[in-house]
Amino acid sequence: MLEELRREVCAANLLLPKLGLVNFTWGNVSGIDREKNLFVIKPSGVEYEKLTPENMVVVNLRGETVEGTLRPSSDTLTHMVLYNEFPSLGGIVHVHSPWATAFAQAGVDLEPLGTTHADTFYRAVPVTAPLTEAEIQTAYEENTGKAIVRTFRERKIDPDAVPAVLARQHGPFAWGKSPAKAVEVAKTLELVAEMNYHTLQLTRADVRLPQFLLDKHYFRKHGANAYYGQQNRG
Amino acid sequence: MLEELRREVCAANLLLPKLGLVNFTWGNVSGIDREKNLFVIKPSGVEYEKLTPENMVVVNLRGETVEGTLRPSSDTLTHMVLYNEFPSLGGIVHVHSPWATAFAQAGVDLEPLGTTHADTFYRAVPVTAPLTEAEIQTAYEENTGKAIVRTFRERKIDPDAVPAVLARQHGPFAWGKSPAKAVEVAKTLELVAEMNYHTLQLTRADVRLPQFLLDKHYFRKHGANAYYGQQNRG
Amino acid sequence: MLEELRREVCAANLLLPKLGLVNFTWGNVSGIDREKNLFVIKPSGVEYEKLTPENMVVVNLRGETVEGTLRPSSDTLTHMVLYNEFPSLGGIVHVHSPWATAFAQAGVDLEPLGTTHADTFYRAVPVTAPLTEAEIQTAYEENTGKAIVRTFRERKIDPDAVPAVLARQHGPFAWGKSPAKAVEVAKTLELVAEMNYHTLQLTRADVRLPQFLLDKHYFRKHGANAYYGQQNRG
Amino acid sequence: MLEELRREVCAANLLLPKLGLVNFTWGNVSGIDREKNLFVIKPSGVEYEKLTPENMVVVNLRGETVEGTLRPSSDTLTHMVLYNEFPSLGGIVHVHSPWATAFAQAGVDLEPLGTTHADTFYRAVPVTAPLTEAEIQTAYEENTGKAIVRTFRERKIDPDAVPAVLARQHGPFAWGKSPAKAVEVAKTLELVAEMNYHTLQLTRADVRLPQFLLDKHYFRKHGANAYYGQQNRG
Repeated sequence: MLEELRREVCAANLLLPKLGLVNFTWGNVSGIDREKNLFVIKPSGVEYEKLTPENMVVVNLRGETVEGTLRPSSDTLTHMVLYNEFPSLGGIVHVHSPWATAFAQAGVDLEPLGTTHADTFYRAVPVTAPLTEAEIQTAYEENTGKAIVRTFRERKIDPDAVPAVLARQHGPFAWGKSPAKAVEVAKTLELVAEMNYHTLQLTRADVRLPQFLLDKHYFRKHGANAYYGQQNRG
Repeated sequence: MLEELRREVCAANLLLPKLGLVNFTWGNVSGIDREKNLFVIKPSGVEYEKLTPENMVVVNLRGETVEGTLRPSSDTLTHMVLYNEFPSLGGIVHVHSPWATAFAQAGVDLEPLGTTHADTFYRAVPVTAPLTEAEIQTAYEENTGKAIVRTFRERKIDPDAVPAVLARQHGPFAWGKSPAKAVEVAKTLELVAEMNYHTLQLTRADVRLPQFLLDKHYFRKHGANAYYGQQNRG
Repeated sequence: MLEELRREVCAANLLLPKLGLVNFTWGNVSGIDREKNLFVIKPSGVEYEKLTPENMVVVNLRGETVEGTLRPSSDTLTHMVLYNEFPSLGGIVHVHSPWATAFAQAGVDLEPLGTTHADTFYRAVPVTAPLTEAEIQTAYEENTGKAIVRTFRERKIDPDAVPAVLARQHGPFAWGKSPAKAVEVAKTLELVAEMNYHTLQLTRADVRLPQFLLDKHYFRKHGANAYYGQQNRG
Repeated sequence: MLEELRREVCAANLLLPKLGLVNFTWGNVSGIDREKNLFVIKPSGVEYEKLTPENMVVVNLRGETVEGTLRPSSDTLTHMVLYNEFPSLGGIVHVHSPWATAFAQAGVDLEPLGTTHADTFYRAVPVTAPLTEAEIQTAYEENTGKAIVRTFRERKIDPDAVPAVLARQHGPFAWGKSPAKAVEVAKTLELVAEMNYHTLQLTRADVRLPQFLLDKHYFRKHGANAYYGQQNRG
């Protein structure tokens, strides 16, 4: 079942160590088949060198394992919530990459300070509110997903325009049209966090980008009038 | 004698350069056979590429070399104290990994600021008190071990729940059920220290985790109700 | 057309990932033939492993593609302005290398704090003024080039003596007599930015070099009396 | 002439890129034959991959090239002064390694904050005073050496007990009994500088080691009563 998607998700998981985004087994990528309403995700705690398309786990949108002998990622229900609530998502990644995680731990939004940010994220990448004791004790992973959705709704952020979030006290989630694209966003997030950290140590001035520069760079790469790369050539 | 344990300890020592935890010969791993009350440890000052199971040194719990032609690690008596006082330990590692060592030098506990910490350490990783002049001049390495034990006793920390310590002015020790597990903890400690360092530079707010989040993440991975990985499947 | 220059520009682009100056496709190198008034530049958004001398794009000094089936780098018009206004330039590079970009985002000039700086840059590497909304909305890439030129003119900086700039909110541009030399300058800029960042965190004192030390080191490597390396031997 | 020393010096130079201590050609190692009063040093500006024992340059203690077709390192006269004034030195290295250089640029001594420091350096690694305009304009490299010697004499530092210095506004020099040992010290200096930098950002407390801990660790590795490694076994 879902052979092509299993291959894509397995390959995207293997990008994580290659791009320096994970240590040990601390990260997971999933991808969804929107017609079948099933997603494929890394098995929990399995080392990257042992991953194959065959040992990926297939899960439905209620979070139940549909195919697979291994237990799915412990973060599966967070992925499930995001797929249910953000219908444009094709792939999701969660890692503990150190720079993005430092912002998540500090509770500091990743504000747009340069065009590297603006090329991928149209606004600040938000930090979620901390979960309450009740949210943590019951349905923790599901509530992590709900806190992400709530953050985007309350702050009126479009998840297509800001394809990542910093889960407070935890680390980043990133997404995209495909599992591979989600991993690219996660790497970009890490690089932007690294640069923003150093920027914030160099100055106390307000160096956030004006909206017109965000508009320029974001739409240089996205949408009908994009002119970066080899797409959209008239 | 202890052929299997020699192989394990040698392999765990070789993980140190592979995981970027040591430079030159600045680190050592040991493992214990609890039935024979003997532990196997790296020889002092020998380069990692020259380590073999055969040149590991076997030491008893009074710190005496029982088998081996080379002098054991200069930190052997610290390992000895920890094996004597913390009977659940199967392996111990000492390194000068830079992020953890910075906290040890600064005398700053590694507080739990995120789930990466909570997945492995149930509380703050403590810094020991500085040794007195008398403790340093006589039985220095043994007193380093005693200072670690005293820190855990006085602060009522369970060494199974917090499997590492920052020896003040010196660097980290980490441990686990096996030599390989001890090395994994040492790497985790280093990654957590890196992330916490940056978190502390980003904010002056108190961003320590609440105990209920420590409970959740620690017990997601440890104990009878753990549900991370492929163990404990009902 | 321009076969030798295509090879040089392709090789210089491939230096970027080798020297750790780029992630993904975020960087571009060009080189100019001053007799033909044509420059060769990386195609936009193409991965480095797919670059060949043949898929480089040839552009004239009005920014028009003269040869090539791919769209040129989205930063092409910035390169064009610099070639037009700084006639000694043989090659230009633009990257988002993290240390230099942090200074660009913070709006902090890279002041000369040591001889590593002085060996390559005779004065501070300046940050440009931010572009206005109008400059961004119309002819953005061209205006980025014009802002660079304006910075050098207004601050009376010789682009041969300071072969790099930090484009505010964006990242560094560097240049030299050849594409390969431009890449060497970009790497030097990154290393200098890394060292200066840490210097600025270590002290609040004014540790800028006196001009006589800049004179000494800069002219040890440049000009008729240089005595570094194997050139100019009497 | 000096075939064995040429091989040693060439090999020690090749350690610099291997240990991550240099970029481009920014570093040099020399070694001395104390019977012949000649030293062998890297040629100036030659890439590491092109170094051979044959293209090393032989220089006498007045700084004159005795054998070799290439110009010696531009820092040759600094090496010369150190060999003349510190007669126990067998090898010298100069690099622009980023952490040590940051302290040199900031003018901040590398204070002993941990045992990693104490294992190699018995006291703080000092920063030299800045050179005057006259010292820079005439005999600059020789005066760099003289400033180092003056720093050690005035502050009563034994160059055997503190085998490195931070040349203000410039970068580190390190030394040892042999060229290879000098490179090991330079790497240790870099690692200590990295850890001290982070320590200083973590705390404002005075966390310098007491002298009795310096005594313990330094003499654990050095002198007649050393018990680290496999030497001095009774």
